[in-house]
Amino acid sequence: VRIRGIPHRSVWLEHPGGPVCVIDQTLLPHRVEVRRLRQLDDVLRAILEMQVRGAPLIGVVAAFGMVLAAREDPSTPGLETAAQQLRSTRPTAVNLEWAVSGLLHSALDWAPDERAFRLETEAQRMADADVESNRAIGRHGLELLRTLSLQRGGAPVRVLTHCNAGWLATVDWGTATAPLYLAHQEGVPVHVWVSETRPRNQGAALTTWELGEEGISHTLLADNAAGYLLQQGWVDLCFVGADRITRQGDVANKIGTYLKALAAADAGVPFYVAAPTSTLDRRLSAGAEVPIERRSPDEVRWVSGVTREGHVESIRISPPSTPALNPAFDVTPARLITGLITEEGIVPVAQDS
Amino acid sequence: VRIRGIPHRSVWLEHPGGPVCVIDQTLLPHRVEVRRLRQLDDVLRAILEMQVRGAPLIGVVAAFGMVLAAREDPSTPGLETAAQQLRSTRPTAVNLEWAVSGLLHSALDWAPDERAFRLETEAQRMADADVESNRAIGRHGLELLRTLSLQRGGAPVRVLTHCNAGWLATVDWGTATAPLYLAHQEGVPVHVWVSETRPRNQGAALTTWELGEEGISHTLLADNAAGYLLQQGWVDLCFVGADRITRQGDVANKIGTYLKALAAADAGVPFYVAAPTSTLDRRLSAGAEVPIERRSPDEVRWVSGVTREGHVESIRISPPSTPALNPAFDVTPARLITGLITEEGIVPVAQDS
Repeated sequence: VRIRGIPHRSVWLEHPGGPVCVIDQTLLPHRVEVRRLRQLDDVLRAILEMQVRGAPLIGVVAAFGMVLAAREDPSTPGLETAAQQLRSTRPTAVNLEWAVSGLLHSALDWAPDERAFRLETEAQRMADADVESNRAIGRHGLELLRTLSLQRGGAPVRVLTHCNAGWLATVDWGTATAPLYLAHQEGVPVHVWVSETRPRNQGAALTTWELGEEGISHTLLADNAAGYLLQQGWVDLCFVGADRITRQGDVANKIGTYLKALAAADAGVPFYVAAPTSTLDRRLSAGAEVPIERRSPDEVRWVSGVTREGHVESIRISPPSTPALNPAFDVTPARLITGLITEEGIVPVAQDS
Repeated sequence: VRIRGIPHRSVWLEHPGGPVCVIDQTLLPHRVEVRRLRQLDDVLRAILEMQVRGAPLIGVVAAFGMVLAAREDPSTPGLETAAQQLRSTRPTAVNLEWAVSGLLHSALDWAPDERAFRLETEAQRMADADVESNRAIGRHGLELLRTLSLQRGGAPVRVLTHCNAGWLATVDWGTATAPLYLAHQEGVPVHVWVSETRPRNQGAALTTWELGEEGISHTLLADNAAGYLLQQGWVDLCFVGADRITRQGDVANKIGTYLKALAAADAGVPFYVAAPTSTLDRRLSAGAEVPIERRSPDEVRWVSGVTREGHVESIRISPPSTPALNPAFDVTPARLITGLITEEGIVPVAQDS
């Protein structure tokens, strides 16, 4: 999608053999700054500090991390250590694990002096595949929006989303947002309810910014307000992303997804999860098996934003010594999910929806 | 309850005939500042800007507002105008409406030159009655905690609460917190999960502070995390307050209460509403009839807190022009509520709980 009208990806190589470029998402929407990642350590830090985040994007950035690692030390022990470091950055999203393990497996078949170059080709291919996959998700989701738009006599289809399963969470298009971007391009009117997504406010900071840059109508809400909107009948459809999906269709996604799914079910509003099939983890049956990342309590106690004077600043909203718990994901049981929108099509999940 | 060990109420007269004193809750927990309200306009501003908030407290502060109005102009048209101004500050909590209309009705029976003095006596009586009512709520709620504590073999009873239905939302004790304060005094161990309560963070700023001053074990969470905790089996009981309760038992309370009630029902965890019987509005049957206040979108876009240097500061978390919607309350249907804890006892609500 676009920044000030110019098409961008969220991760790219500056030039073949060059640094990996990403947009520092911790500064959005207040500043657009590109970070050049030149070595494995830069990639590890970018993922840990959430300069890049979103399951598909961290998968691709980690793949580029393997490229940078191979440029520094293409030996088998070197790559094995790098893969281990990358895998341990964030435990919940399965894409990162797949990407790194897949590349390591391939690299071991190649001569060490070919590894950096061939990994670069592979990582680039994964980035391109993510874009194509999201575009396909968009095509399938667009059909849902088209149908609802006809039912609503051409009035905007009102879509609730959570967190950022957008362009910034992927290489391009996003997962939950891909149908919205395509709808906008093809003249199907949509309005997006954006829940702010505490504690890190990816909805308030990233999804609003993306939608604004593309000119898509949207309204920000506190996470707490989602149930009220659904009760009022102001939501036609929910679209969220996923970090890991189990065999029985339970979905790990950003903390708070489960509460929205409960409210959608209570209101009889369809709840769709948009995710590439690579998010499916066939090793797991039930959602309780998904490892849930716990992040720093300071993400709950402190909030980042911009002051009236334009300085990016953090403020504490609680007493200084208040203990806080910060689980980063929750699991929405399959019974609350209408369907999965994948690149291969829409798969129904809940039996009775 | 106490501030640095010293017992305090949240509203009091400095001396008979003197100004009305309140703690400016917009500065908590960062600074404890007392505001002296000397005329009706000060009271209107304190309620509108939420220096005081919480259904029972704004009822009592509005009652003192009638006292200040009568000192300025005790004529019948003067008091009628004052009552109208007070009633229109905040529409959802019914206590404010009762308090103001009740005092106006009484005052009209008195000679104008007696009104200020007699209203002061009445307002003081309402403040004292609030304290007694909350203590009684505490006694009834304590029995629930005692029973659970025995069932848990003396392990702390884990209570989830939302917003601040605490000491600061009332004159003293709080509604949802009264059982917790009594339990603490009587040696029944409790642990409180405090949801931060965006957009105004009354949980993060006020409930944590109150509980900390009383030495009660607690943990702060993002609102989004409540469902996860309930799913994990880490919550034994939910206690929330109420702004208005309808005849059929639907409860209007701080936005986000409904989402917590859905998750509690899904996990089979009892969900109690603690409120004085004055919160019941017998004129209304269904929750859909409760007027829901909409506040400024800036409360969603901007967050207040304290910087590392100790300055109270506001920061913007979204792009500057992002539209935002800010409903301040939602309605939890009776079917999700286990019971009401009132000063008169515990009233079961949901049929099948």
